[in-house]
Amino acid sequence: MNILKIIGKKRDGLKLDKDEIDFFIKGYTEGTITDYQAAALVMAIYIRGMDDEEITNLTLSMANSGDVLDLSELGMVIDKHSTGGVGDKITLILMPIIASLGLPVAKMSGRGLGFTGGTRDKLETIPGYRTDLDVQSFINNVKAHGISLIGQTENLAPADKKIYALRDTIACTESIPLIASSIMSKKIASGANKIVIDVTCGSGAFMKTREEAQKLSEIMTRIGALSGRETVCVTTDMNQPVGYAVGNILEIIETIRVLKNEIMPEDVEHIIKELGSYMLLLAQKCSSLEEGKEMIMTNIRNGAAFNKFKELVASQGGDISYIDNPDKFEKAKYIEPILAKQSGIITKLDALQVGELSCFLGAGRETKEQVINPRVGFVFNKKVGDEVTEGEILGYVHADDEEKLREVLSKNIFEF
Amino acid sequence: MNILKIIGKKRDGLKLDKDEIDFFIKGYTEGTITDYQAAALVMAIYIRGMDDEEITNLTLSMANSGDVLDLSELGMVIDKHSTGGVGDKITLILMPIIASLGLPVAKMSGRGLGFTGGTRDKLETIPGYRTDLDVQSFINNVKAHGISLIGQTENLAPADKKIYALRDTIACTESIPLIASSIMSKKIASGANKIVIDVTCGSGAFMKTREEAQKLSEIMTRIGALSGRETVCVTTDMNQPVGYAVGNILEIIETIRVLKNEIMPEDVEHIIKELGSYMLLLAQKCSSLEEGKEMIMTNIRNGAAFNKFKELVASQGGDISYIDNPDKFEKAKYIEPILAKQSGIITKLDALQVGELSCFLGAGRETKEQVINPRVGFVFNKKVGDEVTEGEILGYVHADDEEKLREVLSKNIFEF
Repeated sequence: MNILKIIGKKRDGLKLDKDEIDFFIKGYTEGTITDYQAAALVMAIYIRGMDDEEITNLTLSMANSGDVLDLSELGMVIDKHSTGGVGDKITLILMPIIASLGLPVAKMSGRGLGFTGGTRDKLETIPGYRTDLDVQSFINNVKAHGISLIGQTENLAPADKKIYALRDTIACTESIPLIASSIMSKKIASGANKIVIDVTCGSGAFMKTREEAQKLSEIMTRIGALSGRETVCVTTDMNQPVGYAVGNILEIIETIRVLKNEIMPEDVEHIIKELGSYMLLLAQKCSSLEEGKEMIMTNIRNGAAFNKFKELVASQGGDISYIDNPDKFEKAKYIEPILAKQSGIITKLDALQVGELSCFLGAGRETKEQVINPRVGFVFNKKVGDEVTEGEILGYVHADDEEKLREVLSKNIFEF
Repeated sequence: MNILKIIGKKRDGLKLDKDEIDFFIKGYTEGTITDYQAAALVMAIYIRGMDDEEITNLTLSMANSGDVLDLSELGMVIDKHSTGGVGDKITLILMPIIASLGLPVAKMSGRGLGFTGGTRDKLETIPGYRTDLDVQSFINNVKAHGISLIGQTENLAPADKKIYALRDTIACTESIPLIASSIMSKKIASGANKIVIDVTCGSGAFMKTREEAQKLSEIMTRIGALSGRETVCVTTDMNQPVGYAVGNILEIIETIRVLKNEIMPEDVEHIIKELGSYMLLLAQKCSSLEEGKEMIMTNIRNGAAFNKFKELVASQGGDISYIDNPDKFEKAKYIEPILAKQSGIITKLDALQVGELSCFLGAGRETKEQVINPRVGFVFNKKVGDEVTEGEILGYVHADDEEKLREVLSKNIFEF
């Protein structure tokens, strides 16, 4: 086996077999294949594409490049994943609901990068909450409490980590085979039996069009089937932020309010019902999607989901007094209203723009090394389709830096 | 300007403009653009191709990445280049002829790599011959003697050096735009006004088919025109070795014998007439190709070319007693005949196989760091089309290692 022959095959549009893909992934993980050889192959894959069998072999090879979690002692584990977005706190809301319905939740989440947020960053804003549990404590917590949410372990799909970082530097992020295998490899290495994936679609997502989202969904569903992990993909809208809050603490507070049944943004309700009902159905906890949706809303209303969330936070060392009283969370120095510049119906609240401005305020990181500011971001009162009058408050900017605050307020965040 | 945007454009099959190509070449030469970014772009260029304007801009950008020789004080300088092959000693034979006809020869040559030999290695087998003259001595020698042959200077088209080495490790050697720009950038940086290129074609060349050779020729001719250096390409056969000798000292001895008019292999005569007559015509030293061919043969017959070769060797510190008496050259330990295994007409003497066996004997280098053995190689008596009888001597293997000698003799070098 020879990396030049493998690169040459894909360069010429030929299909790579399992052994060739394994040879590349093993060599690249171990460092015997260089970054520039990997870059050439990744570019050839980007341009020439891969068929389902190749993508599945790539996925399994990347999953097996590091630790593969064995969650079999937990019984059926259904993982949930989102392809990312702005204001996406669905994991935080949905997983306690699912756990409260008796389905074990053992989930690892990543950090945010660029304009998209990360569940791990949000959880870490709760004082004391540990996202770095070792695998045994993680499993023990699921056994004791039915739920654990932690960060990805260090050695989870290291080949994917290397390829993901490389793609970013060689203009190869937007390749559907590479996106699909990256997501699926991490899910398989995390020990999931079945997987429900929220394929976000719109300005604030990696998939900008319905067509791309559909293509990615189909590929992941087929990879799931070929690798023995039943996978359901649901496409959801990411043209405007999910819910009302964007920013780490602000989204935790919104999560608490939703689970307490104080508020329920329309889009959040739609997404948790869609994804959650598939999870329940895959686990045979319900006999129809309709029944699943009912179960979800019931456990918000009766407080079971909120109690499960508190149990989760407590079990991972978090201070639940913050959950009971979200006013305790740190606040940004400046909280200033965004006023409607005219009367009319809101036609646009661009997720990408909000994500980038949120990042600019300090809520996100441009590079892996940056430290985020958990306090800053946005809380909107209004979204697309709402009718407003001139001067009305459309939301609030939370900022720690006056200059940045002014800069953000000078933008047209809402369009009419 | 941003390297990701440039990579992304070529990835999507779009045309790169001059500024983008200059940005890449400058950044890669200086090291601000990494090997893996260059690898991704080179692979995208390989797959997507480049148009004439892009290739010309790439060529000029690489030529200008290091020192550009100014040979204007020498008047019209016509460079000669070969795309490489096995037994190719044409530069050694042709350049003294051309110089003896009053056209200044200021030529830099590379070393051999893999199965192809290099003129610089061959020249260095003459005791005392210096290929590392500085530029001023090089120019002075041309002024004084009408000819100088040296190695390429260190800082000649450094971008091409980096890209060439990179291509080798990422399965991107056989790209016609990249081959064309690599050759032409070095010729332009070497100060040539006009260029005659021997585009070798066959098993022992980089271009395996007439079609590929034709395509490369057309592109180089067009780049030459676009960059103001009139370029003529001649396609010659490289299915069998050029002449009778393969190996460094052995080819120098064949060169001496040809220039002394003792022997004249048919293919060597054809090639020196073809290339030489174009050089003379471009320099307006003759009024037709036919006249040029006559002038070339005349100066072999009258000894002018041989005397010019001796003058060259002497002027660069070489010991001319070796030229007068080639028996003085070191000999390999074993010189054993290759016998005809049957009677008949020879149908094949594969240049690639001979080149690889010659390299195996030690005449070539697999990596740039290896030291070559100047003594070993082949001297053939017979070539394709010759009729032979069983047991007749077809040539000799020159080897320093008995095991390797036996291995080579066990091969079917000639086919019937």
